Amino acid sequence: MARAAVLGATGYLGGELLRLLAGHPELEVTHAVSKSQAGRPVADVLPNLAGQYEGLVFEADGSDVDADVAFLAQPAGEAMQVVPGLLERGIRAIDLGPDYRLPDPAQYARVYKHPHADPDHLAEAVYGLPEFCRSRVPGARLISNPGCYPTAANLAIKPLIDAGIVVRASGIVCDAKSGVSGAGRKPSLKTSFCEVTENFSAYSILDHRHVPEVLRVSRIEESEFSFTAQLLPLDRGILETIYFRATGIGSAEDLLAVYRKAYADEPFLRLYPAKQVPDLRAVTRTNFCDIGVHYDAKTGRAVVISAIDNLVKGAAGQAIQNMNLSLRFAETAGLL
Amino acid sequence: MARAAVLGATGYLGGELLRLLAGHPELEVTHAVSKSQAGRPVADVLPNLAGQYEGLVFEADGSDVDADVAFLAQPAGEAMQVVPGLLERGIRAIDLGPDYRLPDPAQYARVYKHPHADPDHLAEAVYGLPEFCRSRVPGARLISNPGCYPTAANLAIKPLIDAGIVVRASGIVCDAKSGVSGAGRKPSLKTSFCEVTENFSAYSILDHRHVPEVLRVSRIEESEFSFTAQLLPLDRGILETIYFRATGIGSAEDLLAVYRKAYADEPFLRLYPAKQVPDLRAVTRTNFCDIGVHYDAKTGRAVVISAIDNLVKGAAGQAIQNMNLSLRFAETAGLL
Amino acid sequence: MARAAVLGATGYLGGELLRLLAGHPELEVTHAVSKSQAGRPVADVLPNLAGQYEGLVFEADGSDVDADVAFLAQPAGEAMQVVPGLLERGIRAIDLGPDYRLPDPAQYARVYKHPHADPDHLAEAVYGLPEFCRSRVPGARLISNPGCYPTAANLAIKPLIDAGIVVRASGIVCDAKSGVSGAGRKPSLKTSFCEVTENFSAYSILDHRHVPEVLRVSRIEESEFSFTAQLLPLDRGILETIYFRATGIGSAEDLLAVYRKAYADEPFLRLYPAKQVPDLRAVTRTNFCDIGVHYDAKTGRAVVISAIDNLVKGAAGQAIQNMNLSLRFAETAGLL
Amino acid sequence: MARAAVLGATGYLGGELLRLLAGHPELEVTHAVSKSQAGRPVADVLPNLAGQYEGLVFEADGSDVDADVAFLAQPAGEAMQVVPGLLERGIRAIDLGPDYRLPDPAQYARVYKHPHADPDHLAEAVYGLPEFCRSRVPGARLISNPGCYPTAANLAIKPLIDAGIVVRASGIVCDAKSGVSGAGRKPSLKTSFCEVTENFSAYSILDHRHVPEVLRVSRIEESEFSFTAQLLPLDRGILETIYFRATGIGSAEDLLAVYRKAYADEPFLRLYPAKQVPDLRAVTRTNFCDIGVHYDAKTGRAVVISAIDNLVKGAAGQAIQNMNLSLRFAETAGLL
Repeated sequence: MARAAVLGATGYLGGELLRLLAGHPELEVTHAVSKSQAGRPVADVLPNLAGQYEGLVFEADGSDVDADVAFLAQPAGEAMQVVPGLLERGIRAIDLGPDYRLPDPAQYARVYKHPHADPDHLAEAVYGLPEFCRSRVPGARLISNPGCYPTAANLAIKPLIDAGIVVRASGIVCDAKSGVSGAGRKPSLKTSFCEVTENFSAYSILDHRHVPEVLRVSRIEESEFSFTAQLLPLDRGILETIYFRATGIGSAEDLLAVYRKAYADEPFLRLYPAKQVPDLRAVTRTNFCDIGVHYDAKTGRAVVISAIDNLVKGAAGQAIQNMNLSLRFAETAGLL
Repeated sequence: MARAAVLGATGYLGGELLRLLAGHPELEVTHAVSKSQAGRPVADVLPNLAGQYEGLVFEADGSDVDADVAFLAQPAGEAMQVVPGLLERGIRAIDLGPDYRLPDPAQYARVYKHPHADPDHLAEAVYGLPEFCRSRVPGARLISNPGCYPTAANLAIKPLIDAGIVVRASGIVCDAKSGVSGAGRKPSLKTSFCEVTENFSAYSILDHRHVPEVLRVSRIEESEFSFTAQLLPLDRGILETIYFRATGIGSAEDLLAVYRKAYADEPFLRLYPAKQVPDLRAVTRTNFCDIGVHYDAKTGRAVVISAIDNLVKGAAGQAIQNMNLSLRFAETAGLL
Repeated sequence: MARAAVLGATGYLGGELLRLLAGHPELEVTHAVSKSQAGRPVADVLPNLAGQYEGLVFEADGSDVDADVAFLAQPAGEAMQVVPGLLERGIRAIDLGPDYRLPDPAQYARVYKHPHADPDHLAEAVYGLPEFCRSRVPGARLISNPGCYPTAANLAIKPLIDAGIVVRASGIVCDAKSGVSGAGRKPSLKTSFCEVTENFSAYSILDHRHVPEVLRVSRIEESEFSFTAQLLPLDRGILETIYFRATGIGSAEDLLAVYRKAYADEPFLRLYPAKQVPDLRAVTRTNFCDIGVHYDAKTGRAVVISAIDNLVKGAAGQAIQNMNLSLRFAETAGLL
Repeated sequence: MARAAVLGATGYLGGELLRLLAGHPELEVTHAVSKSQAGRPVADVLPNLAGQYEGLVFEADGSDVDADVAFLAQPAGEAMQVVPGLLERGIRAIDLGPDYRLPDPAQYARVYKHPHADPDHLAEAVYGLPEFCRSRVPGARLISNPGCYPTAANLAIKPLIDAGIVVRASGIVCDAKSGVSGAGRKPSLKTSFCEVTENFSAYSILDHRHVPEVLRVSRIEESEFSFTAQLLPLDRGILETIYFRATGIGSAEDLLAVYRKAYADEPFLRLYPAKQVPDLRAVTRTNFCDIGVHYDAKTGRAVVISAIDNLVKGAAGQAIQNMNLSLRFAETAGLL
């Protein structure tokens, strides 16, 4: 069995990693690091895991863990403090946070409002969206796990751009909705139950930190892309409704064919028959990205819907998928 | 006191009419018609109204009610059966359903899949979105209350079109989300609790029955307008996120100024300072439509958010607003 | 118009006071005090009140407000700091917190873990459950508004004890469930959306701070009363399921008769026919307490259900009811 | 691999069986029977199972399935129509419905309002609560899976009765709360989203069909047991708050010791340290029953909380646990 360390193990991403890794056939979690819960048994803090991590106790300090791979599920700015040490000690690092997603340290500083502490490893980091970079993952020491919104967006948009069927002058609209777990476990008024239940609201309109990941991967310009993030009154799931004008296709079937070709052998992409719509229920607690298409041939208007679980394909599940590729396990191990 | 009849009084729209009319200073409900609950006291069926409608009992038949005004809150196709009789007996009719919203009976038949039973009164019906037709309401015998989605959409879009600031070639996207009460009270699997909670899904993509109301009022073409309806896991409220390219303005303030001018004296429109976002909580159980704007001057991308309560400004509240205008009461009577 | 000050105006209780008082015919809010939001217009912070409190700005300091009555909606321990000053300046005080609910300062200190700062006024405070103390309110300078759980409990239990139909040796069980707004607006992990949604949990089992209010008002012993508080995944409402053995009655009708006699002329008590059950929907956003009864004559087992809105009859509505009595307005003014 | 048939495969219980069995190491589902969805592929109807049941199509008729074991997840009254035929053909039957839970056909007829169609097999059926009947399961041809409420109740109550620590004259109160999935998938107004969200209500007070299962298993009298069922605004989970007077114990630890002894080697019982409370989150999507205890030594009042997932330990999970025992697989196979 390979040995894994999870840093930031009591946040929602860390807890989801532990939940998924409990059933992994090739890997065991040997270190769970949590500053706030150090010294407590895992099952005390995460009772749904009782019986699955006997003897594992949260540790305070992740700087000297010994493992084959480390999952970094910490707030922005923390992974870049520990990655150099991990790499030096020969531990593969998979960062679920944003520290290594943007290759340019100046852009990182603009978006995240603090300087990058480890610019030396930025170029080396592989942006781990396996559907587009599978061959680069196995050799990588450092994998940057994509953001949740960009995962759903790029899986829907990049094949369209690659196929050349988007009328780019008309722009692409991505209206995104996410469950509250995407905001993390730290209490705040915005994520308090009474503020969220029976409510719905937008945030970071035209200005979301995840947008650069979409522009970069799908190779589109900011002027072509309008993105709104919105908070759904539910725990987990992201659904993005994507609008564009299509050219060069004659039917919804043609639109679907673009995806069928792009994702012919993908284990985690599910394409819906034209006019059928994915919903969040179908992807919750799975590593699937479900895609459905609509097209009005008379006017060229197209709508694509992309749905994932933000904690799984949008974070912990994709991180495990990357780990599987990295350690040359079956790509779906622990995920199906 | 004027006398009102409510037909379809035990659906969600009818119940909301009764709730709001209980506090109206100028009008009392003298007839509540419900086939399914005929013979039962109102407070037995709608316990939240206990103490407010002593002695009022649901009636089975609305064809011979005696009142000054009748609110028709029935399923599509039923109002057109009773409107001719009401008008003949001198009773003003306010239809909350779709029967009189489209002026062309052929278009009605295409959209609603059955022929129109009362084409003679279609031309006479006033489309009651008071912000755009206030002067025509007082004299009208028949008022067609707008659909919930078109109310939020037209209040956001028509001022933009009138001001000429939309780059129409790029199209307008309206990504709409609604609470479940918009689907009515009749049980169905799609609106069952376990199917809706922790879920989110789209329906009627590029093909919603309400779209013709938007095209007609805001004077845009179908090819210019992409509309998606989506089901939020909550009871009431509609929020629409509207995307377009703007021309002829230099800032979000300029965009806001378009609305300030259009809605200078409107009692039920609330405009948010630029970059502030309306949410559903702020409009729930009110007759307000809240509008917020975002604009990126560098690229021309604009986003407008429009929020209403689908049962109030989207239905029962707007119907009372129309009734107030029709009977020359204060427009806000019973609504503030 | 009488003038009111609201202290703690941006918590959930304070916000509910403002919402309800906006429609009060005899009283206007002249001061809204909030340390955290001082200087901001009310409608900015509470957008659902936009248009209703033009010109009213939150103030930082409530110590020198000038008004006829002050509503104190602050955390435990704060009201007792300002009450002496208010009374000295001739302002009637209605405290929605726990500071003046227990007459013995030593008991207060045991329950709330800090000494009482104003023991001199404890004896003077009237415990404002109007159904049981109506005559004492008008002359009172200081009214202590009951806790939310005890309001629902005492309205259900006291008539039973007074009628002598409870087999006290078997004890009374009160299984109480509350919406999350009862926990206040301060963010915490326990009231975060992702912890509450799709969850249900108990707290303060056999040890809730509100129990002494029930024992005192209903005149029962701690050994006779088992109380559990539980958190419902919803915003507002309290429902209590109360179990006991009855003696001296022969039917559910006899049990109902106990309440009919006790509440013959009460404007805010609604009694359900035997075997019908109140639910939270029926009382939400109202000042009603709904009561329903079940009785098995064969075995003497009885179940009573009591439902209120924790923010209305359990807090702000009852405070207004007390204020109406205190200032000799109609008891239901602003509440029906 | 053993072969299983699932009858009633598109209800919530059937869907949960399919979800859980997809990961079972010893058994494959060879027949999925659903009248309403006959002819459709499983993954079309249950998209969350896409990729897991390739080629499996719903069948209309379960009367001639060929398998080693049949799970019957149908409405009350349907299993008893097919059980005789299954047994005749040598197929073990596990009934998730109520048809074989009560040994007396007259009692069945009284409770379920229709006569029993297969009284001959009632005596043979093993009531499959493995914690209390483990040895009887392996040889059984017909297993009656317990009701969801009785599972949580008996696991909490029977050890107390067996240990003789309940003051029976004071009675036992079981205040039960369930998620909406317990009501099944058939649409009804009571389980419509808008009726359930932000609501909470009781039903079947003192009169629930599941009570006889508790009386029989825990060996208590109806006069000693007060049971209320209540509907939580959430999808899945049952939490029961159980009140009684204890005798012969001195502390909460003593109370806990009763359970520790009863459940020393149970794989699916988790006991919480005294004063810690189980919640629904910890058991959701697991086959665990979590139990927590509270005791006030001064007065003898005791409270026990029991939590399960109604669809797992309360239905499909327990059915698989029984099947594992019946076919002599590891008891936890497919469940941990």
